[in-house]
Amino acid sequence: MRTVTFIPSYRKIDVERGTTVLDAAQRAGLNMNVVCGGQGKCGKCVVYIQSGRTEFDQQKYNRFFSDAELAKGACLACETFVQGDLQVMVPDSTLIQEQKILIDGLDNEIDFHPSVRKYYVELHPPSLSDPSPDLSRLLWGIQKNGGPVAEKMYAPIEMLREIPSILRHSDWKVTATIGLVPGGYRLLDLQENDTSSRIYGAAVDLGSTTVVVYLWDLVSGKVVGVASNYNKQISCGEDILARVNFARRNGLTRLQALATESINSAITSACNTAGIDRDDIYEVIVAGNTVMTHMLLGIDPAYMIAEPYVPVVRRALSATSSRIGIACNPNGGLLTFPAVSDFIGGDIIADILACGMGEREEISLLIDIGTNFEVVLGNNEWMFSCAGAAGPALEGGEVLFGMRANPGAIEKITIDPATLTPKFSTINNLKPKGICGSGLIDLLAELLVACVIDRTGRINTDIRNPRLRKTNHFPEYVVAWAKETDIGKDIVITENDIKNLIMSKASIHAACVTLMKQAGVSHREIATIYFAGAFGNYIDKKNATTVGLIPEIEINQIKNIGNGAITGANIALINRRARKTLDSIAHKIAYIELNAENSFMDEYTSSTFLPHTDLGLFPNVQKMLETCRIRKE
Amino acid sequence: MRTVTFIPSYRKIDVERGTTVLDAAQRAGLNMNVVCGGQGKCGKCVVYIQSGRTEFDQQKYNRFFSDAELAKGACLACETFVQGDLQVMVPDSTLIQEQKILIDGLDNEIDFHPSVRKYYVELHPPSLSDPSPDLSRLLWGIQKNGGPVAEKMYAPIEMLREIPSILRHSDWKVTATIGLVPGGYRLLDLQENDTSSRIYGAAVDLGSTTVVVYLWDLVSGKVVGVASNYNKQISCGEDILARVNFARRNGLTRLQALATESINSAITSACNTAGIDRDDIYEVIVAGNTVMTHMLLGIDPAYMIAEPYVPVVRRALSATSSRIGIACNPNGGLLTFPAVSDFIGGDIIADILACGMGEREEISLLIDIGTNFEVVLGNNEWMFSCAGAAGPALEGGEVLFGMRANPGAIEKITIDPATLTPKFSTINNLKPKGICGSGLIDLLAELLVACVIDRTGRINTDIRNPRLRKTNHFPEYVVAWAKETDIGKDIVITENDIKNLIMSKASIHAACVTLMKQAGVSHREIATIYFAGAFGNYIDKKNATTVGLIPEIEINQIKNIGNGAITGANIALINRRARKTLDSIAHKIAYIELNAENSFMDEYTSSTFLPHTDLGLFPNVQKMLETCRIRKE
Repeated sequence: MRTVTFIPSYRKIDVERGTTVLDAAQRAGLNMNVVCGGQGKCGKCVVYIQSGRTEFDQQKYNRFFSDAELAKGACLACETFVQGDLQVMVPDSTLIQEQKILIDGLDNEIDFHPSVRKYYVELHPPSLSDPSPDLSRLLWGIQKNGGPVAEKMYAPIEMLREIPSILRHSDWKVTATIGLVPGGYRLLDLQENDTSSRIYGAAVDLGSTTVVVYLWDLVSGKVVGVASNYNKQISCGEDILARVNFARRNGLTRLQALATESINSAITSACNTAGIDRDDIYEVIVAGNTVMTHMLLGIDPAYMIAEPYVPVVRRALSATSSRIGIACNPNGGLLTFPAVSDFIGGDIIADILACGMGEREEISLLIDIGTNFEVVLGNNEWMFSCAGAAGPALEGGEVLFGMRANPGAIEKITIDPATLTPKFSTINNLKPKGICGSGLIDLLAELLVACVIDRTGRINTDIRNPRLRKTNHFPEYVVAWAKETDIGKDIVITENDIKNLIMSKASIHAACVTLMKQAGVSHREIATIYFAGAFGNYIDKKNATTVGLIPEIEINQIKNIGNGAITGANIALINRRARKTLDSIAHKIAYIELNAENSFMDEYTSSTFLPHTDLGLFPNVQKMLETCRIRKE
Repeated sequence: MRTVTFIPSYRKIDVERGTTVLDAAQRAGLNMNVVCGGQGKCGKCVVYIQSGRTEFDQQKYNRFFSDAELAKGACLACETFVQGDLQVMVPDSTLIQEQKILIDGLDNEIDFHPSVRKYYVELHPPSLSDPSPDLSRLLWGIQKNGGPVAEKMYAPIEMLREIPSILRHSDWKVTATIGLVPGGYRLLDLQENDTSSRIYGAAVDLGSTTVVVYLWDLVSGKVVGVASNYNKQISCGEDILARVNFARRNGLTRLQALATESINSAITSACNTAGIDRDDIYEVIVAGNTVMTHMLLGIDPAYMIAEPYVPVVRRALSATSSRIGIACNPNGGLLTFPAVSDFIGGDIIADILACGMGEREEISLLIDIGTNFEVVLGNNEWMFSCAGAAGPALEGGEVLFGMRANPGAIEKITIDPATLTPKFSTINNLKPKGICGSGLIDLLAELLVACVIDRTGRINTDIRNPRLRKTNHFPEYVVAWAKETDIGKDIVITENDIKNLIMSKASIHAACVTLMKQAGVSHREIATIYFAGAFGNYIDKKNATTVGLIPEIEINQIKNIGNGAITGANIALINRRARKTLDSIAHKIAYIELNAENSFMDEYTSSTFLPHTDLGLFPNVQKMLETCRIRKE
């Protein structure tokens, strides 16, 4: 055996004398650029022998290299044979450079390095001088064409049954699809002739309401189709609790089928848009919450909806797509995101991947708000998480004129502090029908800054203004007069609405502070706050701070990541390193049960003020509120 | 993190403060004896803290240890918590000792360390303070009971669907079956209550004529049943060539089904004898030649029967038994032995495992003789192999009164050199019907030493003796007079028979020498010659040397391993380390194509003498033959 050391990476490998330097480099895991497949034709695999004995054909080399280059030890790795121990310099230009990809909703680029790849190979047919088995011949061909090391690839028996006839029918010109699986690489498909341009992957956000699919061309690294539709499970129950109860009564079969149908119909419509055959999709990656993931895989979620809230499994799981009923290549792979607990599911792990907080030393706070909220605090070394019910107020429930973020909803509001006249915009610029979450947070902040409400949320009824009214029930502020609206009624916000909103924001803020206390982190140490989910996407960051929904930090350090679940799934689909970290991210996150923390209730009480009992934590808000005090005085 | 160092092995592991020493030891890979599963009850996990801070309950310890022991740092690993960096001495008595097993046909004992094991675990039900998922709870329980590290075990999705209800039905008392698979450990089965005493494995020799099954109790390490039957594929063709041609015409389905049926019926009869349920068999290991293995797995063997003789796959393959149709637990594993080439199959790899030649530095020569022969030369560092047609003579074909080794066959013969009267024994002591291979080799040797034939095999017709006759065709020697036989005819051996026998023995000897030349090894460097297969089992070793079937070495260095295929399969079944080496053994063996070696034909010609043209290679035979020369003179 001879030892070959590659610099600058200092990777070492022991090989038999007579091995090519290219083989040695590939076995050492270097991603060599070999356009011709190692036939000495393309001249791409240039390396420099720094020491040691090699064997090569001088004549061939004169074609490729100048005398000066030859003097430096230049040679083609594919045409140079190891004779003694070698030290070989591999210039950057000889390695395959990774493509960088910009993903929707991400500022930074991601290395394009998907987990499934196709390799077109032209093999020499077997002969008496080379009677190696079909599988070895194929795998060596794949390795020579830049694929994984042959010994690390394997073929399931079903594939071994097809290999001999495909190789011979195609005259030994085939396209192999190789997928990364735990412990190695799997031969997923073998097709006649060159189909290497047709390989796709689907990233899926499996939400309890909506399913979103991004279809990626895994050669070009481009998104070729996006589709979404309702989660068809809604027919078995609006919310998760109802669906789990449906499963308890009727079994999981129907819910499992509806989950796959929901994904399949989104995949199909994305395929139709892009003009792609579903059989060319070789990988589907699904981010969903813990219950959704269990249901998709047909695993019983029943024990998650009651104390002590126990999932069956938390890990990332992989399966052959066809066994789960997903519409793609029958041998394609399905991967689900791991979870931390019942309440911190794969969708939150995807958020974490999307915002990149697990890769940086600085501390970040991630908040995903829906009917429930999830909060994660941490960095590349540690993470704490918790979850709770935000109450329906932020989604427009329990607020008189609240509504979901549908067309006609007031989504942005400012109030002139002098006249108390509001200025608002609605979704799709329709006449207003109600107020959605982001509008309600604006309203809360603007009413506070305009001194219409005090820090407990009470409306100052001493102010004389036509928009401020006392009714039989609660004092109220008129946002839009009946004639301006689509509903023929004054759209108002009442003192009771404001109380409900404060309770919602208080539980989110208290959750943030509970994690911060757990980690011993003050709000000054938080470098970035990330909002995930649709709500976060539209919320006014300054107003979110003003009302004390989140700890006060610099406004430009608050960021929206939008649908982090689909972004995270996209990242895991196109970058195998990110995907490999999923389980370790999930493993690193400690889950804090808020109901078991006494400090949470204390903090909740302190947070039911605007922005908080302790104004020292919100110095900028304190400054703004000075005006109120001045005005009153 | 704290570092715990275990001596005398010097294994180190970093663990969190508060971890038990037992957990640390298990994570460091120590096979700790914990009968009670780490509950501080059995007192088996005694270790000695040599340095560092720990936490434990002194009162409990007084129950288990004397003051003197306590002074030495004695403690129970399961009840002692790591506080600082530790050095811990683990006495041998605290480690699980491996059982040693004697296998049929082997002189040395094998460590009993099967690849599948059952673990009975009693789990704490989930609670608010421990809401970990069902899978984690189960796997940690298995680890605590001496199983593999939890992170290295995985459960397929089909199993995850069953886990929650089995755990709850059984009140959290379950038996898990864990199997070693490439890259980790797989949860094969989960049963309610304690079934840990019921776990079996089957080793299978899948011969083209006969199928042999050994059924092992994988708890006690005992063979509980042995069965064999004909390979039912015989209905599609007597020999392999005929069967492959049958497959080319009719497809593989029938041959695949007959292979599994042959195995299944042997397994069933072994189960019936032992009173065992087939569902309690969790592993089946099959050693067979390359064509048999392909057929069993449903992989096309068609390209192996014509130039350039290409198998589809050479590696060891594993599959879920039920997908191949093998009658055992539906989630049980099937493993097939790897091959070197078309001609050197899994049966020969099993021979190598059985004789242990791949583990020793000294050089061995392995010869497996049937209609074809296979020869392997080498040691723990290198091996060469070749195969060829022995011709039918050694199996009794092309010899006038030759027959297979069936009842009534003359199997041993000696000849009085003075009177030329033979003494023989037959199989089952019946009246003779013919002569089988071992008898024919005896005859050849005895006729040579008695100077009846010369070194070219010609019968000396000058000798006057009633047993020596000249007929119209060839001179002949009468082994048994008609009246002594079962067939009413004189049983003779003709000069033509002798020629055919010499041709057979010459090709085997030439193959041995060709490998020796390839490896640069002289016959003096060969420490042991192993005969495998039924023929080898009955052959007289001295006579095999006398006729020059094999190189001459000390008689006591020639050994019979009998049915090496079943012995090798037995070893791989009960010893996971041996099993892990299968692919590396197969990988190490170079295959020499005899027809491509010029030296083979030269050597064959030199070997068509008795024992060889170069008597110097056979000094003992040379001495014996002196008598002939003396007598002639």
